[in-house]
Amino acid sequence: MTRLSNDPAAFADEALEGFVAAHPRRVRQVPGGVVRATRTAPGQVAVVVGGGSGHYPAFSGLVGQGLAHGAAVGNVFASPSAHQVRQVARAAETGGGVLLAYGNYAGDVLHFGQAAELLTAEGIPARTLGVTDDMSSASPDEAHKRRGVAGDLVVFKAAAAAAEAGQPLDQVTRIAELANARTRSFGVAFSGCTLPGADHPLFTVPEGRMAVGLGIHGEPGMGERPVPTADEAAELLVSTVLGELPEGVEAPRGQRAAVILNGLGSVKYEELFVVYRRVAQLLADAGVEAVDPEVGELVTSFDMAGVSLTLCWLTDELEPLWTAPADAPAYRKGTVDPADLVVPDPSAETAEDTVPPATDESREAARTVLAALRVLKDTVDVHADELGRIDAVAGDGDHGIGMRRGSTGAYEAAVRAETLGAGAETLLQRAADAWADRAGGTSGALWGVILRAVGTALGDTARPTAAEVASGVAQASAGVRELGGAEVGDKTMVDVLVPFSYALTAATRAGQPLATAWDTAAHSASAAAEATADLLPRMGRARPHAEKSLGTPDAGAHSLALIVRAVHGVFVPTLENH
Amino acid sequence: MTRLSNDPAAFADEALEGFVAAHPRRVRQVPGGVVRATRTAPGQVAVVVGGGSGHYPAFSGLVGQGLAHGAAVGNVFASPSAHQVRQVARAAETGGGVLLAYGNYAGDVLHFGQAAELLTAEGIPARTLGVTDDMSSASPDEAHKRRGVAGDLVVFKAAAAAAEAGQPLDQVTRIAELANARTRSFGVAFSGCTLPGADHPLFTVPEGRMAVGLGIHGEPGMGERPVPTADEAAELLVSTVLGELPEGVEAPRGQRAAVILNGLGSVKYEELFVVYRRVAQLLADAGVEAVDPEVGELVTSFDMAGVSLTLCWLTDELEPLWTAPADAPAYRKGTVDPADLVVPDPSAETAEDTVPPATDESREAARTVLAALRVLKDTVDVHADELGRIDAVAGDGDHGIGMRRGSTGAYEAAVRAETLGAGAETLLQRAADAWADRAGGTSGALWGVILRAVGTALGDTARPTAAEVASGVAQASAGVRELGGAEVGDKTMVDVLVPFSYALTAATRAGQPLATAWDTAAHSASAAAEATADLLPRMGRARPHAEKSLGTPDAGAHSLALIVRAVHGVFVPTLENH
Repeated sequence: MTRLSNDPAAFADEALEGFVAAHPRRVRQVPGGVVRATRTAPGQVAVVVGGGSGHYPAFSGLVGQGLAHGAAVGNVFASPSAHQVRQVARAAETGGGVLLAYGNYAGDVLHFGQAAELLTAEGIPARTLGVTDDMSSASPDEAHKRRGVAGDLVVFKAAAAAAEAGQPLDQVTRIAELANARTRSFGVAFSGCTLPGADHPLFTVPEGRMAVGLGIHGEPGMGERPVPTADEAAELLVSTVLGELPEGVEAPRGQRAAVILNGLGSVKYEELFVVYRRVAQLLADAGVEAVDPEVGELVTSFDMAGVSLTLCWLTDELEPLWTAPADAPAYRKGTVDPADLVVPDPSAETAEDTVPPATDESREAARTVLAALRVLKDTVDVHADELGRIDAVAGDGDHGIGMRRGSTGAYEAAVRAETLGAGAETLLQRAADAWADRAGGTSGALWGVILRAVGTALGDTARPTAAEVASGVAQASAGVRELGGAEVGDKTMVDVLVPFSYALTAATRAGQPLATAWDTAAHSASAAAEATADLLPRMGRARPHAEKSLGTPDAGAHSLALIVRAVHGVFVPTLENH
Repeated sequence: MTRLSNDPAAFADEALEGFVAAHPRRVRQVPGGVVRATRTAPGQVAVVVGGGSGHYPAFSGLVGQGLAHGAAVGNVFASPSAHQVRQVARAAETGGGVLLAYGNYAGDVLHFGQAAELLTAEGIPARTLGVTDDMSSASPDEAHKRRGVAGDLVVFKAAAAAAEAGQPLDQVTRIAELANARTRSFGVAFSGCTLPGADHPLFTVPEGRMAVGLGIHGEPGMGERPVPTADEAAELLVSTVLGELPEGVEAPRGQRAAVILNGLGSVKYEELFVVYRRVAQLLADAGVEAVDPEVGELVTSFDMAGVSLTLCWLTDELEPLWTAPADAPAYRKGTVDPADLVVPDPSAETAEDTVPPATDESREAARTVLAALRVLKDTVDVHADELGRIDAVAGDGDHGIGMRRGSTGAYEAAVRAETLGAGAETLLQRAADAWADRAGGTSGALWGVILRAVGTALGDTARPTAAEVASGVAQASAGVRELGGAEVGDKTMVDVLVPFSYALTAATRAGQPLATAWDTAAHSASAAAEATADLLPRMGRARPHAEKSLGTPDAGAHSLALIVRAVHGVFVPTLENH
């Protein structure tokens, strides 16, 4: 289990801080993650990777010359936000555009995709690639749905080496796609992991059993069997990976392959070597030449006990990219010409010290919004443990932590914005970005959408009307449905947000003042939250223990309902000018 | 726990094989361990390190340019034999002599010390250095008794960098001693580890507790307390290490130090970074400049959960040696000029394909000895589980495994020697070396001494007499007492060997034929073995659970008694010419 932490909500931030302190000559912290500490040639494509924390050396440990140019670092097991990805990409790019590469998980796809749109819109060409090497996560005919595991390394490495060689963005992207198409991984696990601050494992494997294909966050695998010998484990891994050759590879014999035998955390080095001994024999027997094999911990899941085998079937183009030198904190190969260290430009990091102009009316509205964000934060603080417990029934129990991080970050950003004289829209935009950054994950992104939509409706100029507030909520509702892909009945926060929005719109149209209308709508929200208490699957990543969720409301729906009720009080004295 | 293995007795060998397969460009397997795969400049001092398996990257992972020239690799948690160390040193050395460096554990001290004598005797200057960085293992006034933990790395690195710089053996040794004198480590643990094939942990820490100063094989620490926060753990580690400054360091402020935050196996990277964040703050507050800090797994104990902090207080001489480039499988730093790969000379590895001349009489005696070794091996095979269970009461339960590895190796070597026409002395010497190599640990060394002493008494020429056999056993008894440092009453195999030897000598002097004399002596041995069943401490490394041993005979004494009884049958038809 994970034992050493301070405030669990601060774990990922503190780990990043310690990581950067340990590797000052390779990485430099920037908002949202890390970039290389070394100078990159102007015009070189930047390969920006990322994902949740808890998988070191993925992803920050893979930043350095010859490997990634930057890594966006999310909270524990949660995607970084689009804003984080964008910030890291902006710090990493030097005029050649950006390839965003990540494991193919719902939250990552969503945020890296959004970031690519934002970057492109501001004139930085950006492409995306979700790595899909995990054979156990979908069948071959749905290979695009597969998750990314240790194959990340091969894909990142090939893309980065191509970038270092001066290839343009189209080519770097093509090479990343080629490497991904030729990479397969398969793994087994003997235990799960316990998240920082948790008192029970996020997922488990029964003692003496082996879970075949279990995902690194506990995503369901392909069944269990007794723990095998090391040789039997090697035989299962090799036969499975050799059993599904990529397009263009007719037979293993005569092929050359990048080989990774990856430990998930507490299957340790000597065990990995005992397994690799047999893997090497079997590959040799099959006529496969292992090129620069890696045996160690490349993608972990805290102290999860497991091992996975990755093969990337090399081509003449891919092999030199795999064997090219690299110098990252957790991955070094060959001899890199050391580049100069970057001297950070402090002016580049002060962009948020000013706000656009706003009217006095909008500033007054901003103060009301700030009060609402304060109530929101306080409500989340009081209920964080309860939200965690509810989430633990069907999910990974981090909803309370995520909501606390998000609402605290949003409130703090709003306080800064208010001090700078922000109007309601700007204040909510800053709060939205901060929430998404700090909370991470799907829920962080959705709350970012909510705050931003309401902010857009309020503007920085006029005194907002109750109708405008209702319109903002309606837009938030639409945005959440679009971004998350869930609809009413899917047992998510949409089940609460939609009736709340309908009721608020109806009541304001009927001429009720905001405080009254909000109160009415909040009652609808509470009733809707209770109605989410059943068995249906939730939005977001796979939740292996969903069958346990009977009778418990969805945590996201529940927190939204709590918040809209609590916020009601803020509107009683103000904003009532419909 | 350790889950993946095949035959647990083969674990260390198979791990080494897989390790070498994974790192063909850095290391090359030789009898006894590994050496650099790259060419070393002629006349350069060779730094040969080593110790038991189970601590990767210690020790084989630290072999490569700029770091160790070779590593002798023992069985799990057992020292390599003197013969192994000598073989690795001979393969590594290029005319500049050898520094043998290892952690200061009884078995390692014994075997590396013996190896240094053997090497010196054959004209290869050799020095030894046992690293003593573990503050919790003895008080400052007995610092020479301290064990070696992650400080190994700093000492090996400084010595190897000095060797690479062309310094002669005296200087390399002085630098290793200087680095050792200025290095301090302190650690905490949250769980023990389970050895390959074992069904229960070798040692444990109660859930929710932290063992302060617990050794990497479960050696007793300084007490327990509740698991602290990461910051509190950092504060304990830093304040303890800063609390005992080496000679010549007046105060921390203004000092520069090599810093290692080491994970023992399943305290994982992000946790280590969270702890390091606070370690870095505290060192900065104390005015200590951390030079090239390392945060990761440098000395492990399978999946033991623990963390240790090491500081080496640098001097102007030590700092460039710490920061010099290195390129080992598990430790890479800076930019090394890649050296050419060595093309191994196959003729160098066939030294044991011939035997010295022997008479027909001695060859006949050798066949009797071979039969005895076969009986010995079969006896051990039958009783291996029982020996393991007995040893588990007071020790680490590996006596059965060690005896099986040793007796099987000895028998196989004897079969080869017999095929080549060896006399009794040569056959027993080959068997002795093989036993010590394969079994490792203190027990392996002692059995090596026994077989070698008997062989010397038998010679390669004459038909041995019963008196010569008894004389050989007496010399074996003296050798075991000298090497192991135990005497009768210390509850070790000496308690059996001495009365057996006395009885055998007396009976042969009284004119009994060997078979009769041996039978008499074997009865004494059995009685003596039973008498070892009490509470007294055992020879060899610390055994934290000695208080549990009431009523159980010492495993080493028990196995010796079993063997001498079983071997008796071999002598009935032969060797009876007193």
